Amino acid sequence: VSTSPLRIAMIGHAFMGAAHSHAWRTVGRVFELDRPIDLRLLCGRDPVATAASAARLGWAEHGTDWRQAVERDDIDVVDICTPVGSHADIAVAALAAGKHVLCEKPLGLDLAAAQRMATAAERAQAAGTLNLLGHNYRRVPALARLRDLVEGGELGTVRHLRIAYLQDWGADAEVPMSWRFRAADGGSGALADLGSHIVDLTHFLTGRRLTTVSALRRTFVTDRPDPDGGPRVPVDVDDAVWWTAELDGGAVASFEVSRVATGRRNGLELEIFGDRGSAAFDLQRLNELDVGGTADAAARRRVLVTEPTDPYLAAWWPPGHVLGWDHTFVHQARDFVAAIADGVPPSPGFADGLAIQQVLTAVGRSADTGRREVVG
Amino acid sequence: VSTSPLRIAMIGHAFMGAAHSHAWRTVGRVFELDRPIDLRLLCGRDPVATAASAARLGWAEHGTDWRQAVERDDIDVVDICTPVGSHADIAVAALAAGKHVLCEKPLGLDLAAAQRMATAAERAQAAGTLNLLGHNYRRVPALARLRDLVEGGELGTVRHLRIAYLQDWGADAEVPMSWRFRAADGGSGALADLGSHIVDLTHFLTGRRLTTVSALRRTFVTDRPDPDGGPRVPVDVDDAVWWTAELDGGAVASFEVSRVATGRRNGLELEIFGDRGSAAFDLQRLNELDVGGTADAAARRRVLVTEPTDPYLAAWWPPGHVLGWDHTFVHQARDFVAAIADGVPPSPGFADGLAIQQVLTAVGRSADTGRREVVG
Amino acid sequence: VSTSPLRIAMIGHAFMGAAHSHAWRTVGRVFELDRPIDLRLLCGRDPVATAASAARLGWAEHGTDWRQAVERDDIDVVDICTPVGSHADIAVAALAAGKHVLCEKPLGLDLAAAQRMATAAERAQAAGTLNLLGHNYRRVPALARLRDLVEGGELGTVRHLRIAYLQDWGADAEVPMSWRFRAADGGSGALADLGSHIVDLTHFLTGRRLTTVSALRRTFVTDRPDPDGGPRVPVDVDDAVWWTAELDGGAVASFEVSRVATGRRNGLELEIFGDRGSAAFDLQRLNELDVGGTADAAARRRVLVTEPTDPYLAAWWPPGHVLGWDHTFVHQARDFVAAIADGVPPSPGFADGLAIQQVLTAVGRSADTGRREVVG
Amino acid sequence: VSTSPLRIAMIGHAFMGAAHSHAWRTVGRVFELDRPIDLRLLCGRDPVATAASAARLGWAEHGTDWRQAVERDDIDVVDICTPVGSHADIAVAALAAGKHVLCEKPLGLDLAAAQRMATAAERAQAAGTLNLLGHNYRRVPALARLRDLVEGGELGTVRHLRIAYLQDWGADAEVPMSWRFRAADGGSGALADLGSHIVDLTHFLTGRRLTTVSALRRTFVTDRPDPDGGPRVPVDVDDAVWWTAELDGGAVASFEVSRVATGRRNGLELEIFGDRGSAAFDLQRLNELDVGGTADAAARRRVLVTEPTDPYLAAWWPPGHVLGWDHTFVHQARDFVAAIADGVPPSPGFADGLAIQQVLTAVGRSADTGRREVVG
Repeated sequence: VSTSPLRIAMIGHAFMGAAHSHAWRTVGRVFELDRPIDLRLLCGRDPVATAASAARLGWAEHGTDWRQAVERDDIDVVDICTPVGSHADIAVAALAAGKHVLCEKPLGLDLAAAQRMATAAERAQAAGTLNLLGHNYRRVPALARLRDLVEGGELGTVRHLRIAYLQDWGADAEVPMSWRFRAADGGSGALADLGSHIVDLTHFLTGRRLTTVSALRRTFVTDRPDPDGGPRVPVDVDDAVWWTAELDGGAVASFEVSRVATGRRNGLELEIFGDRGSAAFDLQRLNELDVGGTADAAARRRVLVTEPTDPYLAAWWPPGHVLGWDHTFVHQARDFVAAIADGVPPSPGFADGLAIQQVLTAVGRSADTGRREVVG
Repeated sequence: VSTSPLRIAMIGHAFMGAAHSHAWRTVGRVFELDRPIDLRLLCGRDPVATAASAARLGWAEHGTDWRQAVERDDIDVVDICTPVGSHADIAVAALAAGKHVLCEKPLGLDLAAAQRMATAAERAQAAGTLNLLGHNYRRVPALARLRDLVEGGELGTVRHLRIAYLQDWGADAEVPMSWRFRAADGGSGALADLGSHIVDLTHFLTGRRLTTVSALRRTFVTDRPDPDGGPRVPVDVDDAVWWTAELDGGAVASFEVSRVATGRRNGLELEIFGDRGSAAFDLQRLNELDVGGTADAAARRRVLVTEPTDPYLAAWWPPGHVLGWDHTFVHQARDFVAAIADGVPPSPGFADGLAIQQVLTAVGRSADTGRREVVG
Repeated sequence: VSTSPLRIAMIGHAFMGAAHSHAWRTVGRVFELDRPIDLRLLCGRDPVATAASAARLGWAEHGTDWRQAVERDDIDVVDICTPVGSHADIAVAALAAGKHVLCEKPLGLDLAAAQRMATAAERAQAAGTLNLLGHNYRRVPALARLRDLVEGGELGTVRHLRIAYLQDWGADAEVPMSWRFRAADGGSGALADLGSHIVDLTHFLTGRRLTTVSALRRTFVTDRPDPDGGPRVPVDVDDAVWWTAELDGGAVASFEVSRVATGRRNGLELEIFGDRGSAAFDLQRLNELDVGGTADAAARRRVLVTEPTDPYLAAWWPPGHVLGWDHTFVHQARDFVAAIADGVPPSPGFADGLAIQQVLTAVGRSADTGRREVVG
Repeated sequence: VSTSPLRIAMIGHAFMGAAHSHAWRTVGRVFELDRPIDLRLLCGRDPVATAASAARLGWAEHGTDWRQAVERDDIDVVDICTPVGSHADIAVAALAAGKHVLCEKPLGLDLAAAQRMATAAERAQAAGTLNLLGHNYRRVPALARLRDLVEGGELGTVRHLRIAYLQDWGADAEVPMSWRFRAADGGSGALADLGSHIVDLTHFLTGRRLTTVSALRRTFVTDRPDPDGGPRVPVDVDDAVWWTAELDGGAVASFEVSRVATGRRNGLELEIFGDRGSAAFDLQRLNELDVGGTADAAARRRVLVTEPTDPYLAAWWPPGHVLGWDHTFVHQARDFVAAIADGVPPSPGFADGLAIQQVLTAVGRSADTGRREVVG
């Protein structure tokens, strides 16, 4: 077993950069890793802000040139936390340079970018260079356990599920214009931002892919105040999208994403119905799973997922000592480090991200045509 | 004010007949009515069973001939609690005979029957004879209050809502064949049975009609045991249906009905999102409303709807003394009696029932074509 | 089996009178009884109000002389719904006249009254005349089922429990003076009114009696506005009382009652801990039971108590069709009628009521002395 | 502002040592501190285990001699995470050597030890050396916010509260003997371990001290299996304790601690009732506060305490991204570092710990005498 440090270069240092830094700093102190973690290099565009972030977040070096960074000999892993528009260029370059790549979701700005990334990832993987897409919710212990329940047949054959990601920050028409409301920067709005998460979770939890989709979408707030005081600016992305889908194998799923869901700060809610049982989850109570079923039809079991036998929990605290949102990034880092140690590709990879992007593209198409559209 | 009794003839005496009998027996003891209620006549097909039910449920007379019953001079109201297949004939005859008619939902077995009933109702109403469709959930105090919240603008402009009616009794493939699994008797399965309720509630709560629908449906258990021991019998109705809809005025709604939703005994759950607030309801906790909004974005208010100022509550008990499912039928009876006294048509009427049936028909069509279909 | 009607005389026609009338009117229409119920006679002090109530609530006759009423030959059951101060006189006279007596709780105004009633009840019972004390919460299906769980050993040996009855209507110091704040009329305040319920439930659920108590009590609002506009009037009853108790057999229980518990309309909440499991109940969600235990230590089961196998439920509606507060009185009437038919004394009887009063007396004593006091 | 690192020596490296290490490692990466944190020295008894922990948890040096450690010139803070029996010796020595001391709760093994520590702390504080007792639950954002609610008068005058700390790990009589069941090592059982937390929270949340207590205690499992295979060993500590208390200022509080509360992994639950409102908290949902009150008496507000305006939250993630149990230690470290920077004694200090120990002593005395006992 190598004991040389695993050296990380992180590109980007905003919200996600802080969460990933927390993860890299913490993972080796909680989980048994084969190698220590070295927070080697932080890259950002603004030299002053990047230097301050590096000092604050605990990175040894900092710089502004990501192209140089991804080619340095003393870097093993490139962690991409930049806005989605730059994912493809950075990831392709890093993979070409033989660096393992962790990329924040969604994969790319459009289908072409995602395709390019998946191709590069496939090629690199053949050479032993790994890729991971940052859908951290797979690493919520309750959701990892739910996947195990499904896979282990405890719910029986999955027949239908529903999954919604609801936020409220766009509800007020006076929230000013920003990149998240512009297609050129933020992709397709709630669909790309939130929809990618719930499609990934559907793939993860059921092991099935969406084959057809029927969609509706809406932009409720069609223009927003110019933050610089000019006239109101048109919004060209969606606020909310709904779709139903057929999954391979015969199940049906319904999806809902919204940025205008008043009363929901950050509400990722889902329920899966199998022929023997069902299970529900709510991100705002992320240590819990709510399980029902035919064997005890009048009862629902509210499970506190903090036992040492639950996924990731043995490394943390005794039962009843709950985890939070940021722990999921520590788990993600742990899984990536373990994958690198074992040489086994982790999930979800860029190929999974491409499949998600194909779904989201079909959803957009269906919203336009009013027809059930085939994915891919 | 007349003080002569309001004389009821009820046709049918199974599950719904018991609930309606409870309502007619109770309503005048709880609410101030202008006339006493006379449980005059119970009609059923089997003379022995009907006599036993009349004695048990408190009806003065009993008989087996509904045609004669609806024409008796000493009957003011005909209450139809039979299977849906006979609704149209009974209702049309009763209205023609000048009787006010309360009919259980769904309105008719198919669009033609519903059309026939709506036409008869319109004609009778012109002559002062009233009609009411038995969507009792409009009479849950929490839902009546929710409607007031929406109408009063407390949630702002409604942007989207979701509503699901989930039951589990068909989940097991060994549940035997019955009329509920046969199109000839039960109509379209979960769609007619449960879907009619949630379309009606959408109309009620938002004051808006569905204009287009995009649907999927599934029969997961395609054959079931013959109760008489023969070979398994094919099922020709749906187990579950999903649809998204546009409402006039611009809102979007998503719908879900299922008889195979393991973990849900009788789960009618909905949430409405306006631009200022949202509110959720769950039939299994029918005294509560869960309200969120922009004014207090981090909090949700769980409201116990048992105050004297809440709909229907002043006639019952002090705050905190909760009501149950059967109280909704008492409220329905109260509203019908008040409508008769005032000569004002109650809601939902047969015309509303026809509109629901048009929606369900469009849902079936969309499930077949895979396209967004226009209602009506 | 006799089929002559069971003829009821009810004394009192306010809040409790309405609830009991509802029960007598409904019980024979829902449950299989051996005899029909005859709401024969309603007695009250004010002849006009009593006549109006009798008409409204469905009683055949009405009168103002309870002494005459309890001696009438054509009365089988006397149902006492008057304020507590008159319980003893009415009950003793009715029992002496050979009438079965249902008496609202608490049993008597003081220990002497309770003793007198228990003695009369014991004597009457020897002659086949039955008595029942109206602790209706024993007839909440979820609590009846909880008792069965305890008795059946599902929770193991009970080690400790806590039980609170919390209301808020006295929290505001400007709520005017009334009989509920005067010892001469209302007994000991929250202790008598609410404490009697939770002591009874402890006896019912555990099958054990309290042997010692250690108590504190408080009157937070020491004077209140005179409703007639005079100067503020002193309050001489408690607002809230707390006590811990030892039960025979070794378990420990903690109790809390309050009329100033802001945020609680009518909150009766309890939890029982056995060595194998625990179960919690909340009156505001009275169709549910929340069960935890050692066999599945990380989970709690939220049980919807609406199955046909649950106590009282087979006579009502299908699973998931919830009951309300007033159903408990129907169940109480059903149990009393069945007891009369079978000649088996029902629970809780007046002897149980006396035991409750002994506990409450010891609680008051302990609050005064600051010592652990022995009950009885 | 000094920018020299704040150098920590931590004594002990088990469960609490891991939690504190996480805090020291994280605090400077999340909060703005005036000085960086240096995890300088880890002390433990077993040299091999200590070395392994130091490497794993990220400490620069390790050793086995705490006496030497607390006197080193290059140490600024001593953090005591050892079993309670050694708290006093280490803390007194460290304070005498001029080190700021953070000590895990409870303060000392008995009243004498606590007194000795409080005296040393008072003397050291006069010389600018600070002390902090590790009641981390004060640093749960929802509880810090609750304190602000109380202090700001939003609940009005506090009248009563109840607080329970319930765990289940001792419920099974076959759980083997350990130091936690021996008075010589673990103090008074559940009372010291769990009771100290809830007394501290009462002091914190209300700003009031307990003046009298009335208590009961029980040991339900009186002997336990010898882990080495010998005969069962007697238990000489309590399993559960209950007490009611008067607070200065007139409020009343009830307390409950148990290690045999089946169905509760780690249940710290409390509710405070003021004359204008009430608020409840449950540690298993530590991001939430449940608030009720007179202004909106039929509703309860479930508040998600994750807004940037909530205590500690601005340094973390956007609204709706929940925190976990270990974040409270980061907050505790942040407050201690800020206190050192400002020279302002933090809370709770050793003097507060002594007050807690006086309460627990009075509780034990009351359990013995059966009388209401005065604290102190």
